[in-house]
Amino acid sequence: MPDNSSIARPPLSPAVADVRVAVRRALTAARDSGLREDDLVLVALSGGPDSLALAAATAFEAPRMGIRAGAVIIDHGLQPGSETIAAQAKAAAEQLGLDPVVVRRVDVAPGSGPEAAARDARYGAIAQVAESTDARRVLLGHTLDDQAETVLLGLARGSGATSLRGMSPVAGLYLRPLLEVRREVTHAACAAEGLRAWADPHNADPRFTRVRVRNAVLPVLERELGPGVAEALARTAEQLREDSEALDHMVLEIIEEICEPAEAGIAVDVGALAANPAALRNRIIRLVAFSEFGRSLDRGHTLEVARLVTDWRGQGPIDVPGIRVSRQGALLVFTARG
Amino acid sequence: MPDNSSIARPPLSPAVADVRVAVRRALTAARDSGLREDDLVLVALSGGPDSLALAAATAFEAPRMGIRAGAVIIDHGLQPGSETIAAQAKAAAEQLGLDPVVVRRVDVAPGSGPEAAARDARYGAIAQVAESTDARRVLLGHTLDDQAETVLLGLARGSGATSLRGMSPVAGLYLRPLLEVRREVTHAACAAEGLRAWADPHNADPRFTRVRVRNAVLPVLERELGPGVAEALARTAEQLREDSEALDHMVLEIIEEICEPAEAGIAVDVGALAANPAALRNRIIRLVAFSEFGRSLDRGHTLEVARLVTDWRGQGPIDVPGIRVSRQGALLVFTARG
Repeated sequence: MPDNSSIARPPLSPAVADVRVAVRRALTAARDSGLREDDLVLVALSGGPDSLALAAATAFEAPRMGIRAGAVIIDHGLQPGSETIAAQAKAAAEQLGLDPVVVRRVDVAPGSGPEAAARDARYGAIAQVAESTDARRVLLGHTLDDQAETVLLGLARGSGATSLRGMSPVAGLYLRPLLEVRREVTHAACAAEGLRAWADPHNADPRFTRVRVRNAVLPVLERELGPGVAEALARTAEQLREDSEALDHMVLEIIEEICEPAEAGIAVDVGALAANPAALRNRIIRLVAFSEFGRSLDRGHTLEVARLVTDWRGQGPIDVPGIRVSRQGALLVFTARG
Repeated sequence: MPDNSSIARPPLSPAVADVRVAVRRALTAARDSGLREDDLVLVALSGGPDSLALAAATAFEAPRMGIRAGAVIIDHGLQPGSETIAAQAKAAAEQLGLDPVVVRRVDVAPGSGPEAAARDARYGAIAQVAESTDARRVLLGHTLDDQAETVLLGLARGSGATSLRGMSPVAGLYLRPLLEVRREVTHAACAAEGLRAWADPHNADPRFTRVRVRNAVLPVLERELGPGVAEALARTAEQLREDSEALDHMVLEIIEEICEPAEAGIAVDVGALAANPAALRNRIIRLVAFSEFGRSLDRGHTLEVARLVTDWRGQGPIDVPGIRVSRQGALLVFTARG
C-alpha cells in the first residue's frame, strides 16, 4: 500500500511561513492577555497584498488555536468602483474560510485632508463592526515598511518620541502582527498562494506624503546610508516607544499628587515641577494642557511655560493657545483664556 | 558742532547678530554654571565658515563679558598643505583679537576609518591644549545642520534615543553655541564681515557618509517632506536627549541598590528588573554589561538577556559577546566569558 505521507506536496513558501509565524506569535501573545478559545478576531482587509497575506495567514493559524477568524472590509467610496473592490475582497476572504466577512461603507468627512479623514473614518467603522460582531481583536496589516515610513513622517514633524515611536504592535482592540515583516514578504506570500491582490492607485499618488516617503525618500536613504535603513527605523520606533511609555507612565503616577483644582482652572506644584527632570516636567505641562483644556502644546509653548519654573525671575503670565499660565507663589496656575 | 553719533555706520548684518546672540547666550549660561571673570575660553577653529563665524562672534562677545577668548587649531595632516591652512586660520584668529592662538599638529591613527579617527584625535588634542592653556571651556562650531545630519546618521544605525539625541549644547568642557543656527547663517556672517573661510574638500567627498547625508539625503527630505526638516530633526534631538537623560539618570539612581558582587561577576535583583518598565530594565542590562565588562550590547542581545526576567521558563544561560548571563533564583548573574 502506498504511504500517503510521501505524496509530493509543494514546499511551503518561506514568505507564507514568515507571515504565518508572525500571526501565530501575535495570537499567542493575545491569548496570554485575555483572548479566549472560540473568541472571534477580525482581519481588516483592504484587498491589498499586506492585508490579504495577513488574512490568509490568519485563516490558517487561528482555527488551529481554537480562535474564530473573520474579516472586516471598509469601502471608503473614495474611488470609482470601490464597491467592486470591496466585493472582490469579500469573495477572497470567504474563499480563505474567514467568517463572518462584513463590508462596511463609510463616508469620509471632507476638510481634514484625504489621508487623515480616511483613516479616522476607517478606524471608527472598524470599531463599530468589531462591536457588532462581538470580535475581541482586529488584526491590521501594517508592515515593517509602513512602520519605517511612519517614523520618517514623524521625524519631519519634529515632535520627539511621541511622533517617532511609530505604531504599536498591540493597542487596545488592535493587533499589528506584521510590524516586523517586510512588505516584499507579504507580496511574495500572496504570489506563492495564488492570491490576487488589489493595487490601490492611492499608493502611487505622489500627492500623499506617505507615498513620497515610500517611493522617493526611503530608497534614497537606503542608497546613501546603506541597506537596513527600514529595519533601523523600525528598531528605533520600538525603543522610543519603550522610552516614552515609561515616561508617560511615570507622569500618570505623579500627576494626581501634584495637581489641585484652582479657580477656573488647575494648579500644579512648582516644587514638584522643578524637582523632576525636563522630560517629565514638560510632559506634565503638556498633559495638564491637554487633559484640562483639550489643547496640544507644541515644544515652544511647553518650554515657555516651563521657564516659569526653571527660569523664574518674577515674570508675568504666559499666554499659550487657549490657556493662560501664571506663577502664584508655589503654584503654577493654568486657566482657560477666551 | 556735528553730532558724532549721527555718523553713518554700516548696519549690523542679521547673520552676524544671530551668531553673536547665540554665543552670548552660551557664555551667559556657562557663567551661570561656573565660568568666572577673566577665565579663558577657546574656540576650536578649523578655518571653515562655521568655526570662523563662531570665532568672530566670540572675539566680539567674550571681552564684553569679561571673559578671555583664544583659539585652538588642529592640523590633522590629512591633506597636503594642511600646515598652510592651519597657519591661515591662526592668522585669522589673531586678526580677530583672539589670544592665545594655539596650533596643534596631530597624527590620525589609521584603522578606525578616517571620520572616527580624525574626530578622536581632534578631541584628544583639543582637550590637551585646553589643559595646557588653563582654558575653562571650548566652543565648537557645530550648527543646526550638523545636528540634523547627526540625527539622520543615528537613525540609520537604529540604536534608539542614544544615537538620535545628537550633540549636546553643553558637554563637560565643550559648548556648542550654534546648534540652533543654520549653516547658511554662518556663511552669511563670514561674508558680511569679510572673513575668508576655507572650504574643506572633505566636505564634498562622497566617501564620507556625513557628506552624502548633507548633499543627497537632507535635500531629498526637504523636497519631499517640506521645508523645515532640518529644524524638525534638531528639535527631535533635543527632546530625545531630554528623555534619555532622564532615563539614564533614573538608572544611575537605582543601579547601586539592585546590584551586588557575585563570583567572577555581578548579580542583579530579578524582582527589581521585573518591576521596572522595559526602558529602564533594558538600560540597566546595558549599563551592567558596559560598566562591568566593557561590552556594548546591541538591542537583540539586550532583549535576549531581558527574557530571563520577562519570559522566564527555566531556560539556561544566555551567551552574549564576552558575557554569560544566567538566572540563579532571584538573581540575574553576569559573568565574563572566555
